[in-house]
Amino acid sequence: MNFLKKLEAVSKKNNSIISIGLDSDMQRLPKAVMGSNDPVFVFNKRIIDRTSHLVCAYKLNLSFYESLGSKGWKSLEKTLKYIPEKIVTIADSKRGDIGNSSRKYAEAFFDTLSFDAVTVNPYMGFDSLEPFLKYGDRGIFILCLTSNPGSSDFQKIKDENGVPLYLRVAKKIKEWNKYGNCCAVVGATHPEELKEIRKILDNIPILIPGIGAQEGDLEKSVKWGTDPEGKYAIFNVSRAIIFASSGENFDKEAEKRCEELRDQINLYLDEKKKNLKGK
Amino acid sequence: MNFLKKLEAVSKKNNSIISIGLDSDMQRLPKAVMGSNDPVFVFNKRIIDRTSHLVCAYKLNLSFYESLGSKGWKSLEKTLKYIPEKIVTIADSKRGDIGNSSRKYAEAFFDTLSFDAVTVNPYMGFDSLEPFLKYGDRGIFILCLTSNPGSSDFQKIKDENGVPLYLRVAKKIKEWNKYGNCCAVVGATHPEELKEIRKILDNIPILIPGIGAQEGDLEKSVKWGTDPEGKYAIFNVSRAIIFASSGENFDKEAEKRCEELRDQINLYLDEKKKNLKGK
Repeated sequence: MNFLKKLEAVSKKNNSIISIGLDSDMQRLPKAVMGSNDPVFVFNKRIIDRTSHLVCAYKLNLSFYESLGSKGWKSLEKTLKYIPEKIVTIADSKRGDIGNSSRKYAEAFFDTLSFDAVTVNPYMGFDSLEPFLKYGDRGIFILCLTSNPGSSDFQKIKDENGVPLYLRVAKKIKEWNKYGNCCAVVGATHPEELKEIRKILDNIPILIPGIGAQEGDLEKSVKWGTDPEGKYAIFNVSRAIIFASSGENFDKEAEKRCEELRDQINLYLDEKKKNLKGK
Repeated sequence: MNFLKKLEAVSKKNNSIISIGLDSDMQRLPKAVMGSNDPVFVFNKRIIDRTSHLVCAYKLNLSFYESLGSKGWKSLEKTLKYIPEKIVTIADSKRGDIGNSSRKYAEAFFDTLSFDAVTVNPYMGFDSLEPFLKYGDRGIFILCLTSNPGSSDFQKIKDENGVPLYLRVAKKIKEWNKYGNCCAVVGATHPEELKEIRKILDNIPILIPGIGAQEGDLEKSVKWGTDPEGKYAIFNVSRAIIFASSGENFDKEAEKRCEELRDQINLYLDEKKKNLKGK
């Protein structure tokens, strides 16, 4: 199924624009799952069972799986198969390589693993992204302005006309959207810039990390990061949900935290829509 | 063993600054290995057996292994164990993520897989690279100016003072070298820029891809990419060596091609050294 249609359908059904990041760090898993043969999978399964009615997507950051070698890759494969078909799956891989190699990464995430979407790094330019973009039914989230402190090292450098690199990337994301599946990644830790980028991107989906452990601005990000109709943003939270508790009932706590966050986001969305109608 | 010392020792012993890229694309493997249970590993093994006296490093681009899922990851693990201890191993992964996740990638490549070096992408800035850099005994190759056409999309954008992004990255590589293990990646397809970058980096090692299938300029890259003493460059060739022949004796052909290339590079190095003495 087409990524965009799937995203719209599940967002509507679950009344949610939240993605949970299954950053299932082996060193932080609760005791309750450590007795199993595959603690990462058992942990993910319990989180998914309790939250799949509250989210539009699950994002799997590859680093947490690769750190465990081929065993981690197995946990990743099992988790992907377990996620209900209607929910969007995002490979948070931040890949990007010469065409020959990017083609292989695209095969890895879309053919071998069947993800609906992937995150990619734009530094190497168009031909490093095209092998991903050619999968027209998948979503390609291109890093634009990231949530971490180091985003100012290069992404905020201004060119000869005073345009910062992240805005040049945003313009390219719009320009490169010939397959209709370009998306962007912009951190909630930069709400003003997010507003600026949203104007350029129109209704191109933006994945917005940084509202949990990284303490980005939720209200502004929701109001400024969504399109004028309050759509096309995905808010990702990882640690703040999945590690909400380390107790026996960690999954219940994750559910509670996720529900609170969904309701808070939906409240801001309602306010935005009311304001628009008032105008 | 410290990465730099290992690189110097093996370069001297094998009289070589060549790295072979084991981009062992399943779809291009010769028939001779396809009967096996693990064709990728058998192919790599035969290439390594014939070339390990001719190279200073093997570079494994992760994409070719990940495209095969957990099975590919197994082939990667087996190949790494098979490479003789004295030869440098480079994980060509081009990773880079928020600190939390980069730490996990560093664990994956350095603890779980025991690579000597890794390639990383600078777009997300210092805190995305520091978890790698902290492994002071490993080499961290930061993408500076890549060999592909898309390198001009962002890497060549000039800032307000007319300095292109790749030079700003080069300056940061020098500045961030507090652990003594920063290295750079610069494509042989940009010899003039390579000369410029070498001046900034002094004796920081540069990994130089692009002289094989990508047709970069070998003579200029050797003379301008090495430091004044003709050291601290690694020339990587992948397809042009490993797929030199698809016949029964593909490994012999790879050996021949590798030896020719090594001799050609060493000839240019000798010329460079003679010229320096003449001055």
